[in-house]
Amino acid sequence: MKKYVFGVDVGGTTVKLGLFDAQGNVLDKWEIPTRTEDEGSHILPDIADSIREKMKRIDKDSVVGVGVGAPGPIDSKGVVHRAVNLGWGTFSIKDTLEDLLNVPVMAGNDANVAALGEMWMGGGQGCRDLIMVTLGTGVGGGIIIDGRILTGSGGAGGEIGHMHVEDEEEESCNCGNKGCLEQYSSATGITRLANRLLAASGRDSVLRGREVSAKSVFDAVKAKDPLAVETAEKFGKYLGDALASIACVVNPEAIVIGGGVSKAGEILIDYIRPHYEKNVFHGSREVKFSLATLGNDAGIYGAAKLLLDRKRE
Amino acid sequence: MKKYVFGVDVGGTTVKLGLFDAQGNVLDKWEIPTRTEDEGSHILPDIADSIREKMKRIDKDSVVGVGVGAPGPIDSKGVVHRAVNLGWGTFSIKDTLEDLLNVPVMAGNDANVAALGEMWMGGGQGCRDLIMVTLGTGVGGGIIIDGRILTGSGGAGGEIGHMHVEDEEEESCNCGNKGCLEQYSSATGITRLANRLLAASGRDSVLRGREVSAKSVFDAVKAKDPLAVETAEKFGKYLGDALASIACVVNPEAIVIGGGVSKAGEILIDYIRPHYEKNVFHGSREVKFSLATLGNDAGIYGAAKLLLDRKRE
Repeated sequence: MKKYVFGVDVGGTTVKLGLFDAQGNVLDKWEIPTRTEDEGSHILPDIADSIREKMKRIDKDSVVGVGVGAPGPIDSKGVVHRAVNLGWGTFSIKDTLEDLLNVPVMAGNDANVAALGEMWMGGGQGCRDLIMVTLGTGVGGGIIIDGRILTGSGGAGGEIGHMHVEDEEEESCNCGNKGCLEQYSSATGITRLANRLLAASGRDSVLRGREVSAKSVFDAVKAKDPLAVETAEKFGKYLGDALASIACVVNPEAIVIGGGVSKAGEILIDYIRPHYEKNVFHGSREVKFSLATLGNDAGIYGAAKLLLDRKRE
Repeated sequence: MKKYVFGVDVGGTTVKLGLFDAQGNVLDKWEIPTRTEDEGSHILPDIADSIREKMKRIDKDSVVGVGVGAPGPIDSKGVVHRAVNLGWGTFSIKDTLEDLLNVPVMAGNDANVAALGEMWMGGGQGCRDLIMVTLGTGVGGGIIIDGRILTGSGGAGGEIGHMHVEDEEEESCNCGNKGCLEQYSSATGITRLANRLLAASGRDSVLRGREVSAKSVFDAVKAKDPLAVETAEKFGKYLGDALASIACVVNPEAIVIGGGVSKAGEILIDYIRPHYEKNVFHGSREVKFSLATLGNDAGIYGAAKLLLDRKRE
């Protein structure tokens, strides 16, 4: 009998849902709004309603379960420990959704789950040990060890955006610390680096007098604008050095770069790789760098895979 | 029936062996010399002879198997990829020793295996996610994720001694890179930091005019010698910052400090912890720091545990 699994990616404004077969083919894909009011108490019931609606059209016994990715620390038992974007406190996503749907549920942090998705069907296919870094508004990370998510003791595994990389920083990161990787290598961080360089000198640049963004910086890098190139160099050093440190811990086969910033393409890797190779332990030098290929769907793929890989109790 | 397991720790000059029951009680403990001549080809046959001798006195059917820790990258299949200290090239430790002894064998990197030992019966007891750092001649590392060793794709997981922590370093590390953690936080590294401070100024210190070692530095720290305290501060910043970065990846419950330098005692943690807490992501701030308790036996304990935890094929 054909088996089906649902993959759910809970975001701050929309919930993405996908129906997959066990081979990773997406059969259906849709979205519902995320209702964050009332401490996010409607989110899981809304998801359950939407899945129940789809289940009407397939044999209920063929549904293996539901995987969920959500922003925030989620431990290996499926308990979320505060997800501020969703209004959630601490409770079991797994137990709550299992009670609503009466099928097995697994839950994980969205960045970790996206890494699992890229390993399964995306830029990390064929790898069992993988680092994924998501360069968006922040820097998210997901570490896959021997095919499984590194969850960590409290669900904060793979939080590589908050590695300390700069002692001299004076502005605070969202997390409260100073000098986090996220402050230099996210879309916001790249913009900040460029604006700092623009402010520090009167140097000519195509970026001057326009709104600076990660996209405009890398467009200017492609046009060989010196100030943009200097920005990209700084970005690449922070990220390449950090990835080298992570690789000393993890010894990965592949490093996958995703998130909005990765739309700049292979040029991104050109700025990261030299710093990585200079500083990494020789046992991890031969890593494969690749760009994520699943885009915004990485979360639903990974959530489905998380459920398929669950250990049966 | 009582079950027995052998734990073997292969060092550059001696092989340590232990006979354990499945509860982690050591029943017998002995050593044999490591014969590194002839490309180390006698090492495993010597180990097999020694174990065979012990097995004469116990029911062969009660022996579950043999776990082995050895210096060098050893992948999850038990294949070593060059162990220069032993004269070894690339071959399967597991297959070779299984052929010699006809019992199941598992093998892993010695620092990783020692971490497993400390989790099982030492300073990390009760934890499932743990970072162990061994401060000896070099800096070794072992990462335990959900109770299992983080081996990495090529057996180079947990090589935290070669994390790049200093851009300004001009001397090379043994690995060929410059600015590795090992250059500042090993016994050799601490000595080097102190000698640099002594050479850079004419400042008075109890360390001046004597042979400087990690032990003499920390003895001087306890006597509040300002130059020794400054050395310890530098040591603690490098190691605390590196552990904070690793913890952002791993989200551990505990960090265990072992190796010869750890004989300095709790004062070591006093110099590491403030830097760790300043820079780590808040989700990993509440980690338990402890000193290793198994000393030179961590390897045989961990090797035995590695065998007991093997996945049955």
